[in-house]
Amino acid sequence: MKLVLIRHGQSEWNLSNLFTGWTDVDLTDHGAADARHAGQALQQHGFQFDVAYTSYLKRAIKTLNYVLEETDNLWIPVLKSWKLNERHYGALQGLNKQETAEKYGDEQVHIWRRSFDTAPPLLEKEDERYPGHEAKYNELQEKDIPLGESLQTTIERVIPYWEEEIKPVVKAGKSVIIAAHGNSLRGLMKYLENISDEDISDVSIPTGVPLVYELDDDLVPAKKYFLDQEE
Amino acid sequence: MKLVLIRHGQSEWNLSNLFTGWTDVDLTDHGAADARHAGQALQQHGFQFDVAYTSYLKRAIKTLNYVLEETDNLWIPVLKSWKLNERHYGALQGLNKQETAEKYGDEQVHIWRRSFDTAPPLLEKEDERYPGHEAKYNELQEKDIPLGESLQTTIERVIPYWEEEIKPVVKAGKSVIIAAHGNSLRGLMKYLENISDEDISDVSIPTGVPLVYELDDDLVPAKKYFLDQEE
Repeated sequence: MKLVLIRHGQSEWNLSNLFTGWTDVDLTDHGAADARHAGQALQQHGFQFDVAYTSYLKRAIKTLNYVLEETDNLWIPVLKSWKLNERHYGALQGLNKQETAEKYGDEQVHIWRRSFDTAPPLLEKEDERYPGHEAKYNELQEKDIPLGESLQTTIERVIPYWEEEIKPVVKAGKSVIIAAHGNSLRGLMKYLENISDEDISDVSIPTGVPLVYELDDDLVPAKKYFLDQEE
Repeated sequence: MKLVLIRHGQSEWNLSNLFTGWTDVDLTDHGAADARHAGQALQQHGFQFDVAYTSYLKRAIKTLNYVLEETDNLWIPVLKSWKLNERHYGALQGLNKQETAEKYGDEQVHIWRRSFDTAPPLLEKEDERYPGHEAKYNELQEKDIPLGESLQTTIERVIPYWEEEIKPVVKAGKSVIIAAHGNSLRGLMKYLENISDEDISDVSIPTGVPLVYELDDDLVPAKKYFLDQEE
């Protein structure tokens, strides 16, 4: 069984070096081209998909749409969930990474970015960045709306979604692609590969490059490779 | 309750004047621009959607994706079904409309195009154009795979899909958009507006222009208008 993960291509805020999180920024032209290229690589290697999963954020949805267009799979079911969203970056969302480092110090910013269980400074519910103000999160119970997430708390929503929604479909033999974000995908990799809380901080996923897992019957990875570069 | 229908923008085979049907041709650049323009018109008029429906054909799916992008609704559920596909044009698919008229006569071609219940010449199952050869139609029972459809037989699959899948969602108060094709949408218009078998032949829907229905509690149209032109 094969499972393909893809992190969205470059976004406008990747480019301007801002903390993004759940901010729904678009892909840049470069990011769109990355996504098309990823789709072409999958097409050239004969990948075809039965079901696709993505987040509620347009940079992942558009990346997926480009991939599905290039593999001629636009017709397949696409299931979207906020549980595959990027880690919520709390009160850091919208701040410049460099300026934040100058203000709080490199070490603090490194902890916010790379610690397993340290949350960023939390949002207030009155903040205009609070997800409860957006129609797309109306379905969430208030207790599930994040004010800011660590990688750990991100994993606590990603893995139940994997277990309940995606894993049964993969086990049924369907060919699945997941288009998501740096941290939601790191959470899934950590779980699939049983990576420790310490080691996951060193794992990063390139943008717009398909990551292929070949899974055994227990969904343990037997093989793992990026599609257009050596792992 | 409002319901928005949109026919896909110009396709490559619209442009080259070929009978298209279930052939999965792409939008032209002009067709893509039409779709974006439709999305912008909907956005300017304050339309937001909860659920979207489309066919298995990329010219409708891409039209929908452009509309959802322009209305900032990419995150909503998109449900796809072959039952919203264009009428299957049988053995005419891929033939030039002008050449077909020269060969069979204008009147015969007019009947194939505009009659309510006359099917086009049927495909053989061995024909490479037979939908049973395509992965995306694997789920269909053989009896449901068309060899060629009249408007009447197209309606016989469109209306059950409307009744079973879309109508309950509209009745529940959700804002719905359907991106589909000239004949699947004519079938739905015929049903909603109770247009006779004779009169439906004179109804045509412009490409890439949102058609808005305001429906009463019984889903009878109280008002109907195209979004950027007088009805």
